[in-house]
Amino acid sequence: MTADVPVRIFDTTLRDGEQAPGAGLTVSEKIEVARQLARLNVDVIEAGFPAASPGDFEAVNTIARETKGIAVAGLARCKDGDPQRGVEALLPAEKPHLHLFIATSDIHLVHKLKMSREQALKAAVEWVAYARKRLGPDAEIEFSAEDASRTEHDFLLKVYEAVVDAGATTVNIPDTVGYAIPAEFGELTRKVVDRVGSGAVISVHCHNDLGLATANTLAAVQAGARQVEVTVNGLGERAGNASLEEVVMALRTRPTEFKVAGHRINTEQISNASRLVSYLTGFTVQPNKAIVGRNAFAHESGIHQDGVLKNALTYEIMTPQSVGLSGSRLSVGKLSGRRGLQGKLAQLGYDLSGEQLDKVYQQAIALADTKKEVTDADLTALVEAQATNAGAVEEMTSDSPVKLVDWSVSSGKGGIAKGAVSLLVKGQAVEAMAEGNGPVNALFVAVDKAVEPVLGWYPRLAEYEIRAVSGGEDAQGAVMVRARRSVDPEDTAETVNGHGLSTNIIEASLEAYLAGLEKLLRHETASLEARKETLV
Amino acid sequence: MTADVPVRIFDTTLRDGEQAPGAGLTVSEKIEVARQLARLNVDVIEAGFPAASPGDFEAVNTIARETKGIAVAGLARCKDGDPQRGVEALLPAEKPHLHLFIATSDIHLVHKLKMSREQALKAAVEWVAYARKRLGPDAEIEFSAEDASRTEHDFLLKVYEAVVDAGATTVNIPDTVGYAIPAEFGELTRKVVDRVGSGAVISVHCHNDLGLATANTLAAVQAGARQVEVTVNGLGERAGNASLEEVVMALRTRPTEFKVAGHRINTEQISNASRLVSYLTGFTVQPNKAIVGRNAFAHESGIHQDGVLKNALTYEIMTPQSVGLSGSRLSVGKLSGRRGLQGKLAQLGYDLSGEQLDKVYQQAIALADTKKEVTDADLTALVEAQATNAGAVEEMTSDSPVKLVDWSVSSGKGGIAKGAVSLLVKGQAVEAMAEGNGPVNALFVAVDKAVEPVLGWYPRLAEYEIRAVSGGEDAQGAVMVRARRSVDPEDTAETVNGHGLSTNIIEASLEAYLAGLEKLLRHETASLEARKETLV
Repeated sequence: MTADVPVRIFDTTLRDGEQAPGAGLTVSEKIEVARQLARLNVDVIEAGFPAASPGDFEAVNTIARETKGIAVAGLARCKDGDPQRGVEALLPAEKPHLHLFIATSDIHLVHKLKMSREQALKAAVEWVAYARKRLGPDAEIEFSAEDASRTEHDFLLKVYEAVVDAGATTVNIPDTVGYAIPAEFGELTRKVVDRVGSGAVISVHCHNDLGLATANTLAAVQAGARQVEVTVNGLGERAGNASLEEVVMALRTRPTEFKVAGHRINTEQISNASRLVSYLTGFTVQPNKAIVGRNAFAHESGIHQDGVLKNALTYEIMTPQSVGLSGSRLSVGKLSGRRGLQGKLAQLGYDLSGEQLDKVYQQAIALADTKKEVTDADLTALVEAQATNAGAVEEMTSDSPVKLVDWSVSSGKGGIAKGAVSLLVKGQAVEAMAEGNGPVNALFVAVDKAVEPVLGWYPRLAEYEIRAVSGGEDAQGAVMVRARRSVDPEDTAETVNGHGLSTNIIEASLEAYLAGLEKLLRHETASLEARKETLV
Repeated sequence: MTADVPVRIFDTTLRDGEQAPGAGLTVSEKIEVARQLARLNVDVIEAGFPAASPGDFEAVNTIARETKGIAVAGLARCKDGDPQRGVEALLPAEKPHLHLFIATSDIHLVHKLKMSREQALKAAVEWVAYARKRLGPDAEIEFSAEDASRTEHDFLLKVYEAVVDAGATTVNIPDTVGYAIPAEFGELTRKVVDRVGSGAVISVHCHNDLGLATANTLAAVQAGARQVEVTVNGLGERAGNASLEEVVMALRTRPTEFKVAGHRINTEQISNASRLVSYLTGFTVQPNKAIVGRNAFAHESGIHQDGVLKNALTYEIMTPQSVGLSGSRLSVGKLSGRRGLQGKLAQLGYDLSGEQLDKVYQQAIALADTKKEVTDADLTALVEAQATNAGAVEEMTSDSPVKLVDWSVSSGKGGIAKGAVSLLVKGQAVEAMAEGNGPVNALFVAVDKAVEPVLGWYPRLAEYEIRAVSGGEDAQGAVMVRARRSVDPEDTAETVNGHGLSTNIIEASLEAYLAGLEKLLRHETASLEARKETLV
């Protein structure tokens, strides 16, 4: 590899990231994220694990069909059935990238696969050769040795050599359990580069169990790796994966430390990507998260403020603008109608027009009536609420299966609350009242009582997340619920999420619950998590 | 330094961590955190910056007086006035540790201090010698070269040599702007160890702007550093500091990579420390945060679950128990009264008895009436709510200046809400009604209207945070508000935080607001952030 090759950014937010317990996305949400990854200009979008579930297959297949100019990857085990489904899902892709893996560490071979080293090596070679034949000479075939960092080095190198001979063009070194320390991981990468670097791109995939995923990834780049597998917000199983924004901004901020030609990421899209992924998965980003946390560019102490005012370089090594933070606040009153809003949204990275723009405009005006200051965060929340409902809206228009006619709630000292709702469910008017240990609980129970006679089931709440969008007394509350059906004859264990946004947190909660109910009704389900098998 | 010296864990949660915008703690909250740091068994507690404000002085002084067996540190600039205040604050400490600093990078010298290198060197030596004289031969005197990682190396080494000659026993290398990459930071540390390692302990202090604070800290340990400056949850200015839990667990999980005799931390106290700091500061910990995130030990995918069932080692490099996660769920019904609860709380790391235990017991029983399952998270939240009010409770008993007599709220479609409160403020009965764009807003405005005639001011809300403690339909909501006085004749810019906890999120919000009001009334203020000058 030469110094003038940029590092290839392989984003696995939609595969390893989405695998985080509680982060499951529906197909339409995955497509929304893929569009943002395209705006970020990542090199590869790993869209899912086609053999894991029909939903995962559909997501990979749809993203493969729709994405132009960017490679689309799908994961597959080296096991009959998986590579075939992977190939099938990727066939429509302009740039297909099949990602095959098998475990190589003794601990995984003995306890999980119950295979010998020789059997694992044989399976790896066999399926790499199969994929090369099916996808042709131009496709990218990547091979991952699961738990590579705990694999005996001689065997690991032997496997990599064999798969490159069989047609792999990328070999990946996963630190599956987040066990590696940068110095040793750099050394391991160097060995792999020395052995097969002339025939394949060397890739790394690091987990963050000890807080070292970004550092291990960068140590590997210093040692010659030229593909990095990362996720937005560091999302992923357990403590997550190396974070795209940290790796990308480190490469950009310290170019002399890395003998590579940087990367092709539009860093100005980082903040939008972070917000979208956090919003859709319900995974908060902590204030002190590097690059994308609320405080990442905030200076508190007198000395710091003083230094920043005198010369930003004293305490800032990156500008907020470089990651797409405008830092500005606006009042909607100042906007000259739809066009002004459109311009403002463009600054925030959203390209809206027509009906979508109209809808956000109306909501922004309504919000300005109830809230003194409509901030960038408020607008972003509105657009994202719009985006998640967009897939649904296209198909349903006026014949929405659930319509909220009226609701009311009262509560007082002691905490007991009474709620009433009136709904149209599949065109049928229903209403119910209920008590609860709080107003949200009372309304949710009222919804359950109202819909059960019509549907035979009601939504069973699995998770409830609430946060304040901005700081003030009149802040909007953003609510996310995850729910499944109380009765599920098909035993699909499908869960959906619903979002709500309002200055009234009770209303936001009800909206979110009804959005979830609607998705359950429409079978627009998240990946079948119970059946999903993955890894790396 | 020899291999059999444990790494000294210098915790700066209460100094650099507390400096994070929005994380300010009151003196009694700082003392609560210091007690938990003692349970963790850190080697040094940096308790604050005595010259920054009277509150900071009081916190350092009180913690110095109360803490036995653990060193207590205070920060001071190399500038007339600061070291004197620092010495004074630390005088009652069993093991005083004065932490002096001055910037040494040209960019800081030119743009911030407007000093020459020679002037900075002279100030450093002068104040180190002063501190040594005042605190005697046994005290720990630490010197930090602010922005060391961007300081010209020859000058940096010259400064370190001079301060060690003048009496410094620890020299610290801060990566103030989070700019360093592990390989280069390790090299810099090695140079410092070679030059002054025989006369002083070498320490590092890393910021996380590029996500590399933990890795840089560990690279320095590999290069011979024997003190690490860390914070719980990686709290700190901007993207925060190296995280205590990550550094400590990496040292413990990979002992062969570090030629040191580990550390003395009771890792089983890590989860409690994380929850307490998150609760008091209102800084959430993201689900995918290493070690202490909700998902850090959660396994989702079929392959992972399968592997974990077959052999935990396939995907777990640490046990949840090693960081104090019991992972159990309990139903309070099963507890045999107060004693059963006491035992359960002991498992969770809380030692409660007498009146405190009674109070938590009553709350747990009441909670069990409104909520199907009382989880560990619920109990932890109750105990922590108890702990934060403890300082206040001791002094106020029945003559609490604010008492909630009654409240009610109603809301319905359209979002407008009406609220009413009835309070006793300094013994005087007041009541008011108000409308708002949501029930929380309506009640807060009603409180404002009720108290202003009596007090001449009302609380002005600066931040409002809300989260669900657990997942279910009947989850408790935990609310934190930050507020200051609407009229502040003394212009102290003091802010306080108030916490509320209830299955009714409206009630939790009202409780939090009134807790904040009470603190403002009692002048139990957070550090005077506007006046605080700090750094490193």
